Amino acid sequence: MLEDSPNTKIDAALAKLGKALESGDIEAAVNLFQADCYWRDLVTFTWNLRTMEGHDQIRDMLTSQLNTIKPSRFRQDETELATDGDGITQGWFEFETDVARGYGHTRLKNGLVWTLLTTMSEIKGHEEPKGLKRPMGAEHGHDPNRRTWSEKRQDEATRLGYETQPYVVIVGGGQGGIALGARLRQLGVPTIIIEKNERPGDSWRKRYKSLCLHDPVWYDHLPYIPFPENWPVFAPKDKIGDWLEMYTKVMELNYWNSTACKSAAYDEDKQEWTVIVERDGKEVVLRPKQLVLATGMSGKANVPKFKGQETFRGEQQHSSQHPGPDAYKGKRVVVVGANNSAHDICAALWEAGADVTMVQRSSTHIVRSDSLMEIGLGDLYSERAVAAGMTTRKADLIFASLPYKIMHEFQIPLYDKMRERDAKFYSDLEKAGFMLDWGADGSGLFMKYLRRGSGYYIDVGACDLIIDGSIKLKSGSDVDHLTETSVVLKDGTELPADLVVYATGYGSMNGWAADLISREVAEKVGKCWGLGSDTPKDPGPWEGEQRNMWKPTQQEALWFHGGNLHQSRHYSQYLSLQLKARQAGIETPVYGLQESHHRG
Amino acid sequence: MLEDSPNTKIDAALAKLGKALESGDIEAAVNLFQADCYWRDLVTFTWNLRTMEGHDQIRDMLTSQLNTIKPSRFRQDETELATDGDGITQGWFEFETDVARGYGHTRLKNGLVWTLLTTMSEIKGHEEPKGLKRPMGAEHGHDPNRRTWSEKRQDEATRLGYETQPYVVIVGGGQGGIALGARLRQLGVPTIIIEKNERPGDSWRKRYKSLCLHDPVWYDHLPYIPFPENWPVFAPKDKIGDWLEMYTKVMELNYWNSTACKSAAYDEDKQEWTVIVERDGKEVVLRPKQLVLATGMSGKANVPKFKGQETFRGEQQHSSQHPGPDAYKGKRVVVVGANNSAHDICAALWEAGADVTMVQRSSTHIVRSDSLMEIGLGDLYSERAVAAGMTTRKADLIFASLPYKIMHEFQIPLYDKMRERDAKFYSDLEKAGFMLDWGADGSGLFMKYLRRGSGYYIDVGACDLIIDGSIKLKSGSDVDHLTETSVVLKDGTELPADLVVYATGYGSMNGWAADLISREVAEKVGKCWGLGSDTPKDPGPWEGEQRNMWKPTQQEALWFHGGNLHQSRHYSQYLSLQLKARQAGIETPVYGLQESHHRG
Repeated sequence: MLEDSPNTKIDAALAKLGKALESGDIEAAVNLFQADCYWRDLVTFTWNLRTMEGHDQIRDMLTSQLNTIKPSRFRQDETELATDGDGITQGWFEFETDVARGYGHTRLKNGLVWTLLTTMSEIKGHEEPKGLKRPMGAEHGHDPNRRTWSEKRQDEATRLGYETQPYVVIVGGGQGGIALGARLRQLGVPTIIIEKNERPGDSWRKRYKSLCLHDPVWYDHLPYIPFPENWPVFAPKDKIGDWLEMYTKVMELNYWNSTACKSAAYDEDKQEWTVIVERDGKEVVLRPKQLVLATGMSGKANVPKFKGQETFRGEQQHSSQHPGPDAYKGKRVVVVGANNSAHDICAALWEAGADVTMVQRSSTHIVRSDSLMEIGLGDLYSERAVAAGMTTRKADLIFASLPYKIMHEFQIPLYDKMRERDAKFYSDLEKAGFMLDWGADGSGLFMKYLRRGSGYYIDVGACDLIIDGSIKLKSGSDVDHLTETSVVLKDGTELPADLVVYATGYGSMNGWAADLISREVAEKVGKCWGLGSDTPKDPGPWEGEQRNMWKPTQQEALWFHGGNLHQSRHYSQYLSLQLKARQAGIETPVYGLQESHHRG
Repeated sequence: MLEDSPNTKIDAALAKLGKALESGDIEAAVNLFQADCYWRDLVTFTWNLRTMEGHDQIRDMLTSQLNTIKPSRFRQDETELATDGDGITQGWFEFETDVARGYGHTRLKNGLVWTLLTTMSEIKGHEEPKGLKRPMGAEHGHDPNRRTWSEKRQDEATRLGYETQPYVVIVGGGQGGIALGARLRQLGVPTIIIEKNERPGDSWRKRYKSLCLHDPVWYDHLPYIPFPENWPVFAPKDKIGDWLEMYTKVMELNYWNSTACKSAAYDEDKQEWTVIVERDGKEVVLRPKQLVLATGMSGKANVPKFKGQETFRGEQQHSSQHPGPDAYKGKRVVVVGANNSAHDICAALWEAGADVTMVQRSSTHIVRSDSLMEIGLGDLYSERAVAAGMTTRKADLIFASLPYKIMHEFQIPLYDKMRERDAKFYSDLEKAGFMLDWGADGSGLFMKYLRRGSGYYIDVGACDLIIDGSIKLKSGSDVDHLTETSVVLKDGTELPADLVVYATGYGSMNGWAADLISREVAEKVGKCWGLGSDTPKDPGPWEGEQRNMWKPTQQEALWFHGGNLHQSRHYSQYLSLQLKARQAGIETPVYGLQESHHRG
């Protein structure tokens, strides 16, 4: 007997799944999954970002949602090849719900579903005006009341926030706010982005001058306008800044630069926010229905408190305030911390002729940039992937299709490979006294990023300076106190210093909610980011998704958006559709609203 | 016997052509072409843009060039399907010359070449840094003399034109100068673009306010960064302006805005230009090796002289100076001319409540925008074409593969179709007294554009206003003179006027050379644009290519670049490669240098 082709297997599984879901036969649907199974849903079934793990969670979700969601038309995407390998059949499919069109991916084992990803592509009747639906631009015919594009655009910009109210206010105009703002504009959701800096892109421009993206270009595209073929692999910060600035302009975002957000309060009765901002020196009161904090997961500086900080006579800066090395030639600098920023800042200071000491308080995960690119990202985000026909959209969906619960299992072998490939490098680092780790379970950088957003450095050269002693290293002891002229460690070491840089990371994003709204709301929402993996800095319980990110929170109409360029691109799609649905008055029954377990 | 597949036929023809050319057997090569044949070469064989028509011209070109060019490696592009239809086999191929890589297209009839297109893709050893060759951006490692991207970019911008000299100066920073500047930057050719306006894009922004592109988005992409999927079909002028401005910034062009070019002179001994410009109120002397005039084929206003112009008490404007209708509500306006700008300006004035009369002095070719899009461009430049897998590059090459000599034969049936489709419309226009034509041979709009760059209107609504009399029409009589308060036609009609707009087109681009360099050089170069078709405003002799555009001229180191966005995109490729070859010191034997037959 001929073996079935992968496409035939996917067809068969989808036919059964579609039939069970359409007929409301929840048990039949559940039994199409193997016992060890995952269904990750991005907005279509749950109006939430949720991963259902195992039969019981899937049954519970379907029992709650199926009647309202009314899924239908499950069918394989005929433009994609299904594949077989390692006992797993993978395929792509389209489907619909009552109100939306969706796209999905599945992995089958022995004909049963192991993983299922369902994502929302667009809301029926609210499709983006692109391709065949793009605007005409010119309005043909004749109209004595005709207004030009530029007059209309100018009108809108002048009136919005004064005579008319935005439906959404996004606080924070970095890559996150900009990508989300672009999607909302395409969906016709009136939005204002509030940004304290003078120009879009300044949140990059104002950081230390040697900063380049640590993620490669293929991973970093914004929605709608991908970087061109000649864009650098690791874009320098000012170049990214310029790109964001032009993007904001050509995507016609209502971007209020040089504007400070002073406070926000939610009126439960009116179901409306009162957001007070200061623009051009004048207070403006905005009354949006939805508020998005896109102030950055690396936005709220975490400055440790040490005795003697107030008496230290040199300069002290958080890494986010560090202007670059130029003023510190010949100076003695102590950098507290040993993650990305610490390494970048130390290397730049050494290059400028400063005397630099890094204080490593706890172990750090190090990967070399080229190994990470090749082994960690190469299949999805690289020139090689592009040449093999991989699109950004498909790469994002494959990435999203791996349930967080088992993602580390996919990651560990990659990092084992890097460890082997760069064995001499790691041994040299350890000889220099550097404390290394590979994440709690050896799963490396990306899991650390998802779990805690910290604890690593992607090596682009600083490690060699540590190995050869150019950057001095003090590891294994925390700061005890500062004197007028030095940093004293707990082991008694005294480090004379003209400048202390605290490269000590950032607090949870709900800290922004505490500042802008209230401590009460911040605590009601709880910690943002992290998976609940019960590993260092990612306390349980297990959530299965990133806490409070891009999805409804315990505070009605309050949303958090952030992360790297990849996440800003991909998750802005789901957040924008959730906001659009609410603006359009579509029923959005949220399944499994995020609970709050940690105050932040 | 099985019939050969189209790909097999193309393979066979390429094998023979390659063998003949590689072995230097010119007669064998010539005999692979049928008697009625065309070889259009863009830079690879001729270091020129030339179409060889018939055996003799092909033989002559090969006799002159073959020894130096050394073509080789003719092979079918395996990623494209060859096709058969109407007795013609079409296919795509790659090839090389001694110094370059090329790409081509051919049409065979009965196994013999009917049309051949050979184009230069890149120069060996001077490939653009894109894809696998893109820059790293971040410079990994450590370097005490490290300068950041932004410091280096700033340095370059500060020094170029003062401490260092550009290899190329482009006069004119519209779409043409910008597209060419972008390509030259990618090729590493130091270039300054001189632009009199304040901001990139102002040459669009400053035109009449209702202006939108008449060409659709699929036809208008710039190199490197295509318009996004949500870009309007017909972009409003200010939106195109903003796009050009951002493009100039992110492509890192050295764009000298608010800078006037005062004069240019070529030193034959030094082989160098002296270009005097005024920047920020100060004179700067530039000494480039190459000078490109990209001042626009619609740049040098053609203002007719009529008796009484000096005594007319109202306003007189060339269409390029017309600010839009807002100030003319209730005023009487006479618009002289009946082409694109005249129609757009009349319609906008009528919409604003002016009393408008159009003076049509000679017949005009009219096509309705939707018919033109569907019938004229739809196969190559449309959403339909994109959905069918047509890329911009391929569309450009197909377009370029039709020899100008026979292009009208491909065009006439399209315009016959439009005439039939819109018969009622044309009949209504004629009833209103409008004088119609379809080009000298019925070949319609695109041939008129190529031959004379004038004589048509793409209807987006003004025709209905003429048909219903909202825009008054006086046709068939030229202006005789102006009085203090009116325009008097040769037939005696007196048209009272507060404003006269001369929508009377533009002069040949070599007029710019007369202004900037000298009358002598302008005459030595001769008329720009036109094919030599011996039709109205396109005097013979037949050239087979557009006169003096994008190729060497009778003035060493002087080049003309211009045209619509399509041409700015596509032909900037060939002009940039010609300039790069000269900068790199590569031998560039020009075959068939453009002769000068008309002073301009």
